[in-house]
Amino acid sequence: MSTKDQLLLYLKERKGDWVSGEALSNKIAVSRSAVWKYICKLREEGYVIESSPKKGYLFRKAPDLLLPNEIRQGLDTKVFGKRDIVYFTETDSTNTRAKDLAARGAPEGTLVISERQIKGRGRKGRSWFSPSQGGIYTSLILRPSISPSEAPKITLLTAVVVAETLRSLTGLSAIIKWPNDILINGKKIAGILTEMSTEMDSIDHIVVGLGLNVNTTDFPDDIREKATSLFIETGKYFPRVRFIQEYLKWYEEYYEIFKRTGFEPVIKRWKELTNMIGQQITVEMVSKKYFGEVQDIDKDGVLILKDNNGKCHRIFSGDVTLM
Amino acid sequence: MSTKDQLLLYLKERKGDWVSGEALSNKIAVSRSAVWKYICKLREEGYVIESSPKKGYLFRKAPDLLLPNEIRQGLDTKVFGKRDIVYFTETDSTNTRAKDLAARGAPEGTLVISERQIKGRGRKGRSWFSPSQGGIYTSLILRPSISPSEAPKITLLTAVVVAETLRSLTGLSAIIKWPNDILINGKKIAGILTEMSTEMDSIDHIVVGLGLNVNTTDFPDDIREKATSLFIETGKYFPRVRFIQEYLKWYEEYYEIFKRTGFEPVIKRWKELTNMIGQQITVEMVSKKYFGEVQDIDKDGVLILKDNNGKCHRIFSGDVTLM
Repeated sequence: MSTKDQLLLYLKERKGDWVSGEALSNKIAVSRSAVWKYICKLREEGYVIESSPKKGYLFRKAPDLLLPNEIRQGLDTKVFGKRDIVYFTETDSTNTRAKDLAARGAPEGTLVISERQIKGRGRKGRSWFSPSQGGIYTSLILRPSISPSEAPKITLLTAVVVAETLRSLTGLSAIIKWPNDILINGKKIAGILTEMSTEMDSIDHIVVGLGLNVNTTDFPDDIREKATSLFIETGKYFPRVRFIQEYLKWYEEYYEIFKRTGFEPVIKRWKELTNMIGQQITVEMVSKKYFGEVQDIDKDGVLILKDNNGKCHRIFSGDVTLM
Repeated sequence: MSTKDQLLLYLKERKGDWVSGEALSNKIAVSRSAVWKYICKLREEGYVIESSPKKGYLFRKAPDLLLPNEIRQGLDTKVFGKRDIVYFTETDSTNTRAKDLAARGAPEGTLVISERQIKGRGRKGRSWFSPSQGGIYTSLILRPSISPSEAPKITLLTAVVVAETLRSLTGLSAIIKWPNDILINGKKIAGILTEMSTEMDSIDHIVVGLGLNVNTTDFPDDIREKATSLFIETGKYFPRVRFIQEYLKWYEEYYEIFKRTGFEPVIKRWKELTNMIGQQITVEMVSKKYFGEVQDIDKDGVLILKDNNGKCHRIFSGDVTLM
């Protein structure tokens, strides 16, 4: 932990009490003028910390920002988020940044976060609405020892992780929509964008992007009917830092299960978290379009659709409309 | 064509004759002092150009370098090499450079060339011997509209292109060894490293790296028995620029065929250029090893191996040893 983080942690632990400059200086073993510099730095980051020549320092509140030190304090993981957390106030796309870092050798578990995205992306070059403070835009770097053909499993695993996180933190009934969306009350609250870099027969890295609407109060016209946020669903502001910590914890847990025992327990849980099986849907692919009933999602995550002539189709990826 | 390239082309056309500064200045419509500056620039690049206050300029010879202007002059393609040619005297790996450029939006047909690689790479992180001037180290950016699962076809297509280029330029009997090597007289003369970046269901870009031993006179101990070069096979130095031009031309031709009519004509030619079918081989994969006879390479480029018990295995990728 950096000296600044130590100072912050100590101040937070003493929240509500004034702490003298001398006590802080002793506690973290730096000079009193160094303490003052760290306080200034924390204030620049948005922390509200009062100071008084006589009484010392008083922690008031943390900024509503996804700062790496906020995420690390109280993060209960071994690897995810314990590597670099690369933080932007604004960037083009966290996936683009993460791919760049991964190409330069960033290790598994590296996390990219931005308060806002200029070119937030969804599947097939679609945009993802990414305003300041409303949402979580984060990308995680993975380096699994699986073949490129198995990579779609990572998207399904991520969907399970996001649904588990939402359910455990909010109690809302988050539902997975194949292949990469999470719905609450039939509206999209989160999307997953998985990208990877491979040799033909081995994965170099996978970047898993998550866009989640947390405190978003409104959406643009073209998505207002289809999108929702935790704020819209509950009427309450939601601490985003807490979500990220919980997300990373669930992610590490499921990723470990996947690596240790394979995909079976993941897809089993996936099926419990979806309501698609048995539903009538339309699937649009690049050159084809099918209508029919979802029979199953098979052990590899492939959607099995029975059309009106009773013929079954194995669908690897496409745009799904629930009827 | 840049003004410098125009000047170079004109001087080359008049090779053996002195050309006056005035004639050059008129021909390319710049001042005589600008002509002088271009001549200095060309000399810095390694061109030998004589000058005389009375007679003007005399083109002697081009440097033995893979300079973009040398490649472009006489390049008979529509797209490949007509986009940016990014040239390095030395770089880590042309594939790494090309992936970086592609991630930043470089278009299909962009070419990266280096005279030397510090971290020349082969499959599975193996190194590729990449000394100055001996070889060709080049990477081509492609953006095909195919699914990620079809990408291995690009490696096979590239092998056909390299074998065609070698055969048409040298008359040597270049043979393809599945999946990504080219042999002459049983020794490796070229290797192909295909890497790609994808969303789960669509390719963003493919980078095709080629390492070819051209004028290499000797190899390190560990590969001396297995590697060869055009110089070793023929006893002659070989103009590398000519190879790149011919390679790009063949590449564009086969790539067009693949896009227009599919993979069938490519794999048909591939089979004519290999001697593997019917041979006894060992294939090593990550966790398995097979020994048997090559039955076929199927329509998707998958190797079909019949083991000693008569059982057939479909092999997508692996390390092959011919027995």
